[in-house]
Order: sequence, then structure tokens, then C-alpha cells
Amino acid sequence: MSKTQLHAGQAAPTVSADALKRFATDVFARAGMPKADAAVVAEVLVWANLRGVDTHGVTRIPRYVDLIETGEMNPRPAMAVRTETAASVLIEADRAAGPVAMTRATAEALRKARDAGVGLALVRATTHTAALGYYTFAAAREGMAAIALAASLPNVVYHGTRAAGVSTSPISIAVPGREPLVLDMATSVVSMGKLNQAKRTGERIPEGWALDKDGNPTTDPRAAQIPLPMAGPKGSGLSLMIECITSLIASNPLLAESLEGTPEGRRHRQNGFVMAIDLAQFGDPENFRREVDRLVKALKSLPVDRDAGEILMPGERGRRTFESRSRDGIPIPRAVYDELQALANRLGVAMFPSLSR
Amino acid sequence: MSKTQLHAGQAAPTVSADALKRFATDVFARAGMPKADAAVVAEVLVWANLRGVDTHGVTRIPRYVDLIETGEMNPRPAMAVRTETAASVLIEADRAAGPVAMTRATAEALRKARDAGVGLALVRATTHTAALGYYTFAAAREGMAAIALAASLPNVVYHGTRAAGVSTSPISIAVPGREPLVLDMATSVVSMGKLNQAKRTGERIPEGWALDKDGNPTTDPRAAQIPLPMAGPKGSGLSLMIECITSLIASNPLLAESLEGTPEGRRHRQNGFVMAIDLAQFGDPENFRREVDRLVKALKSLPVDRDAGEILMPGERGRRTFESRSRDGIPIPRAVYDELQALANRLGVAMFPSLSR
Repeated sequence: MSKTQLHAGQAAPTVSADALKRFATDVFARAGMPKADAAVVAEVLVWANLRGVDTHGVTRIPRYVDLIETGEMNPRPAMAVRTETAASVLIEADRAAGPVAMTRATAEALRKARDAGVGLALVRATTHTAALGYYTFAAAREGMAAIALAASLPNVVYHGTRAAGVSTSPISIAVPGREPLVLDMATSVVSMGKLNQAKRTGERIPEGWALDKDGNPTTDPRAAQIPLPMAGPKGSGLSLMIECITSLIASNPLLAESLEGTPEGRRHRQNGFVMAIDLAQFGDPENFRREVDRLVKALKSLPVDRDAGEILMPGERGRRTFESRSRDGIPIPRAVYDELQALANRLGVAMFPSLSR
Repeated sequence: MSKTQLHAGQAAPTVSADALKRFATDVFARAGMPKADAAVVAEVLVWANLRGVDTHGVTRIPRYVDLIETGEMNPRPAMAVRTETAASVLIEADRAAGPVAMTRATAEALRKARDAGVGLALVRATTHTAALGYYTFAAAREGMAAIALAASLPNVVYHGTRAAGVSTSPISIAVPGREPLVLDMATSVVSMGKLNQAKRTGERIPEGWALDKDGNPTTDPRAAQIPLPMAGPKGSGLSLMIECITSLIASNPLLAESLEGTPEGRRHRQNGFVMAIDLAQFGDPENFRREVDRLVKALKSLPVDRDAGEILMPGERGRRTFESRSRDGIPIPRAVYDELQALANRLGVAMFPSLSR
């Protein structure tokens, strides 16, 4: 029996969130992070798995360790506030792990919003920000409305060109309700994660998803290289403006450096933007939550589109997955499990126990 | 010769921006606005014409006068700051004309941004906000990055339903450069203006643009009633979140009131959001402009998509139209001209002179 057949016959291991967090914390601590920072990164990655955003979960652990080992991610960054105004901070992240820098930024945005009604934290020179929804969700739990943006290297077509000119630049917006509404979306028509999934299954991708390496449209998932922007000029326009209001305000241009092929442009780098609005300073926060719930109810009362099956609110599917996975555990695909096992062996870290095999 | 044939044989009148502004100012003053407010509305509408956004230009004048005459738009509003924090204001607009309320909001956002680094102005209970790009462009001219949002009544499909649940909720983002970059986009796949244009020409619309009145997909422009959201759940999710962070923070819900069919929900109402970031407080503003220009140059150097024809930046087409129309005048379609002529006669206002007929 080949290794593939053996694996195909095995169910994906299922793991509790706590066990997975302990494992991820151990790995990042072993890779050089202070224990508290390692726990923050573990928390953000496992949250993504709990919400069903597996592309931004523990599958990223080996890549993060790579980034540390190649010097792109700084496990012991000297993060510092570079600029501070009454309503904002600009944080120099010193190539910190994204979750460490963005968690700090979220705390600063909340603090500024409590002082000034609205608070903005810009993050300069971080690494992969992970699931942006984590930060806006955290702000919503504190009674705030929040907007988070991330700027990254060019990997999405700029409309009108046949090449990568902008990034997937996600946008997340969250507000409190009985359950928070949490929108978290890429500005590309399809995420890199979905494209990679199609590559693995070999299933044809729809027209309008991606170009091949030569800049020609393709429906062959193996040839697909560069996702197209969402809604053409709208998606790439949003992504361009996100680079401007995030990277350029933070004096850390990503797109131009990379497009010009400078040495700095070849490094893994991201910038972040977290804005919070303190609802209590504009009205009764309880009333705000009631109005969110009222709007949800009104939208759910509309006639359903049979093709879509049901009427979902931003973040609703993630909340359901969170509930089931918190209860039943997180399924880890065999290939990811094997990669984590190999990493655990190499670093001398104990592998997480599975609830099932 | 029938009237239609007569008109078909005539070129559209062309008018200077100044003449059009004087005319619009006279109309709104006659309809009850203080002269200064009338001039602000005229300025914003004619700017849209100059930029080529004719759907948001003087074609709106008769509708605005209707709104005044039916009591929906208040020509002499008692606008007031309802809430003020170090970095924000919430303005009660008292059903002011959108341009009057949004121009005030932009000034307040700039003032707060100068004080606090970032400034947010929320506008409660205004009317049609007109072209959002006007306000962000004005902020960019003052050395600010700006984001503007508008919330309105449901006229766009909420993804997963077959009915209007959210609005076209535009987003505008602008930053300074040699020329400002100005993104101004609806969150629907197509604007109401484009849909109405197809209705007039009778040309088939692409699949995925709109549903008919029964909630079924259609390519017949005359049957098309409800535009679909841009990129499915992304567009309608953005629109929903814009309602939350604009209308619900301002305690003036629009979507739920309308979906529930309350008396208030049947009135014409909008809310607005203008945020400004003072670039000078985060770095050298000259360097920021240079970086914007550098990024534009890098994107324009990418291989062009022959189908698109050329690589455009957000707002670039509008800037070109602005230049040519500032020089050569604004063409006014015959039907719009006739409607404005009838309004002028009714109100006893002198019609604007044409540069040509």
C-alpha cells in the first residue's frame, strides 16, 4: 500500500482547540518567541481554524517558522510607537509576527477610541497579519465598531493589466450585536487559499477567477497563477487605495518596491490598519445592538434565493463552525498533520494529541 | 416633423460650468435655500458633470426641487453638532440637501484630523449625498487621506435573497498625489444610473447585473429592477456593514425601517460618513505624494490587457473629462435640457445660455 493510499484510508485527525494552541505555542516558543507572544500567535491561528478559515489557521505554522529561520519574521521584535496623536498611533513592528503586532494595534486603537471617540492604529513592517476578522471581532466584543485592513505584496491582477500589481488586501469590518457581525473579505475575486485548494483537487475553476503565468485567462487550476480583482476595477482600485492609506501613510511602500524589483521588495512584508469607533460615545450601545439584530431579522425575512440555499449574515457561517469545532474539535487534513509532525520532530516539540484518528 | 425627430436632429446643448452653476444656484435659491447653500449644491452637482459622472450632475436638479416641495429635503435646515469627541462629530443634518451636510461634515472631519491625527464626521438624516468623490477629493486637496461612505434605502439585492435588502452604498477613498487618486464606487455590480441608461437605449444587459420585479434574473433592461451586489456576498456584506457603521452609529436606521415598511421607512433619507487622516502627522506629506506617483508609474508599466485598452488609476478618467469639459463645456442631453427648461419656466428662473445648440 502506498503512503497516499494509506492516508486516503485514514480519517483526518481531530484535535481540541486547547491542544492545538498548546502545540502552536510550544513551536513558536522553541523557534525563539517569548512565551506570551507565542501564545498570541497560537491564539489567532487556532481561532481561524475554529471559525473554519483553515487557510489562515495552523497550516501556516511551518511557513511562520520558515520566516523566522530566514530572518524575515523577528521573534523578539522591538515594537515601538513611532508617532502618536490624540486619536492615533503608528507602530513600528520591527518585523513582528502579524498576530503580535495586530493584537497590539487593536489594543491601541481601542484605547484611543475610548479617549477620542475614534482611534486608528497603523502598523508598519509586520509579517503575515493572519485572519483580520480576529481583530475586528475582538473590538466588537469590547463594544466598538472596527475596520481592519492589511497591505501585502503584489499577487492580484491590477485591472487593465495582465500581471500582479496589487495584493489580495483584505478588508474586515465588525460591529457588536447579539452576535457580532464580522465581514472579512479579500479584494480579489477568489482567495489564494481557494485557488490552491482547486490546484489540489484539480477541479476546473470558473472563468474570471485567474490568469496563468503569461497573463492569459485560464480555467485550468494548475495553470492558474494570478487571481483577478473582485468586480474588476473596483477590487483592484480598493486594493490600491488600501496600499496608499496603510503602507504609504506608514512610510513602508510594498507594491512599488516589489514591482520595481528592489532588494527590499523581494522580502516578505506587510502593513496593517485597525480603526475603532467607541459606540457608547455616539448613542446607547444597547440600542445599537438591538438595531443590528433588528436589521438581521429584516434581511432574513426576505424571500430566499433557492440557489444560495439560505440567507447568511457576515460571519454567521464562521460562528456556527466555531460552535461545532469548539465542541467536537478541529479536523486537521492528513497532509497538514504530517507536515506539523515533521516540524515537531525537527524542533523537538511534543505533537498534539488527537481526539480521533 | 415630430418633436422627437426635431430633437434627434439637434446636437446636445453645451454649457459652461459657470453658467450651469449660476443656473443651479438660482433654482435652489428660488426653491427656498439660502443663496450660500444653493451655491454649495450647485457646485457639487456641476463638479459631477465636469468629472463625467452625469448621473450625479444637474440631471438631479428637478428631483431635488421635488424633494423640497414634498417636504423631504429641508431648504433651511437647523444643522447642529449632536455629539462631539476629540476626534469626531455627529452632525444632525435636519434633512439638509446632501451636499450642504456633507460639505459641512468634510470641513469638520478635516478640523478634527488636524487636531487629533484622524477625524470622523457622521451625518444623520441628510438627503441624497450626490457624488461622494467630491468630498474625498476636497480632503485630498487639503493634504488628507479620506474615506467617505453613504447609506441609503434598500435598492440592491442582499446576497442569498431575491429582493432589495441593501443599498448601492458607495465608498469613496482619496489620497493626494501629483493628481489625487479618487476611488468612488457603488457596492452594487452596476449603478442605478447605468441600469437606467440601458433602459433608455434598450440594449441587453449582461447576466448577473440585475433581477426583475419578481426576483428572477433578467438580461432585459426594461424588466431589470434590482441590481445585484458586486461580487455577491462581498458587495452586499459591505453595504450591510456601511449601514451599521453609518446609520446605526448615527441612530437613524434606514434599511430596517424601510424593510419593515414603517411610515419613516417610506421617506427619502440618507446618512453619511466622512473620515480624514492628516498625512503630515505621520510623515513627510511631500514624500507621500512622491510615493503615490511612484506607485502609479509602477502600475502603468505593467503589461496592458488589450481588452481594457489602457491602464487607468482611480479617478483618472474623471480628471481627463474634467479638463476637457472645463475647456469645452458640459454637454446636456436634450431630454435633460428640456426638463430643466420646464423647471426654469415654472420657477421663473432664467435658463442658462448654451455655448452651442
